Amino acid sequence: MTDKSAPDEFDLIKRFFVPLTKNAPGAFSLSDDAAVLSVPSGRNMVVTTDAMVSGVHFLADTPPEDIAAKLLRVNLSDLAAMGAMPESYTLSLALPKSTPSENVLWLEHFTEGLSHEQELWKISLIGGDTVSTPGALTLSLTALGSVAAGKELRRSGAVAGDTIFVSGTLGDAALGLSVLKGDLSGLAGEDQAYLVNRHRRPLPRVALGGRLQGLAAAVIDISDGLVADLEHICETSGVSATVDAGKIPLSPVARSLLDLERNFLNAILAGGDDYELLFTASSRNHAALAALAVELELPITEIGRIDAPAGDKKVRIIDENGKLINVASSGYRHF
Amino acid sequence: MTDKSAPDEFDLIKRFFVPLTKNAPGAFSLSDDAAVLSVPSGRNMVVTTDAMVSGVHFLADTPPEDIAAKLLRVNLSDLAAMGAMPESYTLSLALPKSTPSENVLWLEHFTEGLSHEQELWKISLIGGDTVSTPGALTLSLTALGSVAAGKELRRSGAVAGDTIFVSGTLGDAALGLSVLKGDLSGLAGEDQAYLVNRHRRPLPRVALGGRLQGLAAAVIDISDGLVADLEHICETSGVSATVDAGKIPLSPVARSLLDLERNFLNAILAGGDDYELLFTASSRNHAALAALAVELELPITEIGRIDAPAGDKKVRIIDENGKLINVASSGYRHF
Repeated sequence: MTDKSAPDEFDLIKRFFVPLTKNAPGAFSLSDDAAVLSVPSGRNMVVTTDAMVSGVHFLADTPPEDIAAKLLRVNLSDLAAMGAMPESYTLSLALPKSTPSENVLWLEHFTEGLSHEQELWKISLIGGDTVSTPGALTLSLTALGSVAAGKELRRSGAVAGDTIFVSGTLGDAALGLSVLKGDLSGLAGEDQAYLVNRHRRPLPRVALGGRLQGLAAAVIDISDGLVADLEHICETSGVSATVDAGKIPLSPVARSLLDLERNFLNAILAGGDDYELLFTASSRNHAALAALAVELELPITEIGRIDAPAGDKKVRIIDENGKLINVASSGYRHF
Repeated sequence: MTDKSAPDEFDLIKRFFVPLTKNAPGAFSLSDDAAVLSVPSGRNMVVTTDAMVSGVHFLADTPPEDIAAKLLRVNLSDLAAMGAMPESYTLSLALPKSTPSENVLWLEHFTEGLSHEQELWKISLIGGDTVSTPGALTLSLTALGSVAAGKELRRSGAVAGDTIFVSGTLGDAALGLSVLKGDLSGLAGEDQAYLVNRHRRPLPRVALGGRLQGLAAAVIDISDGLVADLEHICETSGVSATVDAGKIPLSPVARSLLDLERNFLNAILAGGDDYELLFTASSRNHAALAALAVELELPITEIGRIDAPAGDKKVRIIDENGKLINVASSGYRHF
């Protein structure tokens, strides 16, 4: 806490944001008009921007450290889906007009969260803007990474006959949101905590993304939901897809919930916010992918196949008997 | 206008934002998770982010085309201050929850404005995020440019004996804000329009910034106000500065207002939002700067000198008799 009653923008930047640039000499300690980045020869820059608004993308009482983690991680997930290595980021922050001491306390926790994330993901702040808003807390982050020139992963490479794979487990984040909204109160405390953590702190699959070049034909990260994001692959690749619902990898908690109540399947198929990588690969790469899963200690699960284009219905979900399952909503609609 | 009652995020992106990426193949028509940029060998990337909030950085009734212009231009001004050439940008947009048709109409005008700006400044959209907000319209833009490796302009190079120069004229933008707030109603309509235009559509000095390498010792763009931004140069360079108020270049409108009412000097010295370049240069470069002013058809005016460090008082403003002028407020406080 500061003993000044109303620290101005420059004070806040110096105290909270300049320390986050210590590993980025081209950020000039935020004392210049812009940052300078050198890009190693033979590599290209990869750039992505994601925004989050309080009450829209996260509940208003979300701890600042968790907001920091999620904001950075959803952007890193986009870099991972392109096969890029994270390098740096700029941050745009519109802070509600609360009392100065409240803002200072919030910034203290938020930037502690960022600092922790920077160490985890080897990334550094290089610039940004802090403004005040009469409205809701609004954050926007632009993440910059690099990839070997011409070697970026794309959504558009899927071909009929490819197998569809997904990393990790799906549905936990959507179920975690249900916990936060007061549903699933019958669940054991530790299970609730597990799901909430998966919602608040998704794990961008940066290491996996960096290894999929030459193995995957089409890649996307699951932010809108399995069905919606698979539709994106189908649309850009000009193919269709069939997913075997019974093969979708689930955490033990999600599995037990689904066993109790089949309606949870919808959260798993369309809930979104998983930030796992969804990709297609030719059968000749299956062995290499299995080896990679072992090496990265990350489940990579086959969940379906890519087919020839099939009109409007781009993604079919089938049950264990091959019967079509109707998905209520494709694409994550924010609460 | 669209005939759909509630276009979703993907429809809006396709209709309004994809066309803005047509000159940027690495944006992949916004169909991938991130954009890919190649950086020419021997050049570095320059990155800057600025945010704007309705009611804080612009009046709520500002035309969308003007919001687009200002948002892009204030970022380009940061690139200019580093001597960088603009290349591309990402845009983050938090749209208030109004009726869908209102949002579509607003986006139509806003992206028309962006399209026009892109042609003017030879820059292209490469990515971004569009979200909804319960609060005020909030925009954040990250501009990317390039500069010859190691040749970026900095704030920190000013040395005692340098002359202080400024491009264009100062104060018009701050006076334009006064017009918008209903002051200066006695001014002729065309003069009001001139000042408002200077407030809403600052001219980033991209061409000048690109030519100052080797000529200027320290460079900044004036966003916070002449005094505050000169203080930034003094702080990072470890010097002090003296400005001769009578030498500050003024438009004919600003000059006539100042002749009527000396209080307007404060708007000129500290009003901000000018987005002119403020820089220092050794006397051996004066002739080259004079030639550059002629070539670019842009006034470059000598307004003071850099001195040795002088304690807390970094910037002195003196009148025609060498008497110190007290500046009421240094640094732009948003309305």
